[in-house]
Amino acid sequence: MLADPQEASGMYGLIVKITVVPGKRDEMIGILKESAAAMPRCLSYVVAKDSADENAIWVTEVWDSLGSHDASLALPAVKNAMPRAKGLVSNFERIAVTTPVWGAGLPSAAAH
Amino acid sequence: MLADPQEASGMYGLIVKITVVPGKRDEMIGILKESAAAMPRCLSYVVAKDSADENAIWVTEVWDSLGSHDASLALPAVKNAMPRAKGLVSNFERIAVTTPVWGAGLPSAAAH
Repeated sequence: MLADPQEASGMYGLIVKITVVPGKRDEMIGILKESAAAMPRCLSYVVAKDSADENAIWVTEVWDSLGSHDASLALPAVKNAMPRAKGLVSNFERIAVTTPVWGAGLPSAAAH
Repeated sequence: MLADPQEASGMYGLIVKITVVPGKRDEMIGILKESAAAMPRCLSYVVAKDSADENAIWVTEVWDSLGSHDASLALPAVKNAMPRAKGLVSNFERIAVTTPVWGAGLPSAAAH
């Protein structure tokens, strides 16, 4: 199979599971929303509550490249969120690092 | 924190890890693309290669409701894909069932 244009563009994906201190999930989701409100070259960033564990949050991310992800860590909104999040998080697990190859709902590579 | 409109809409999310028979990942990704090309009320469906395991695929899905997800299983494209996929898959893990609450790149609830 030939690589499609999205694959050729070298997208970068992350699947992260965040476990919070009991009772702090909504507060943590609020911090994630603020920090992720304006992230250049982020193609998708979904924050979701685990349906079985009331203290777990899943974050699934698609970036146009690894470099765009790494650059986001220097954004003021992201840097400001980190110390606020620190006291709420009991465990942070990078479940998978991926190369997204196709996505319904993702902008096409031609749009970049 | 008050629920935002997306949360109120009752979105449904899935994070699935598919492990394929060695050498069959690209073929399996092709089948997933075909089966997911036209799924009504699917807000996001990303297929990604695991960067560390050459036989693993991650599928992350966001639906406007559980009912829309369930209805997709009856679509001809999905039903046709299942027997073709069967011989390629060595393990299918539903890693998480979620309630997405916010997503950059997701259409707003108002669009539905």
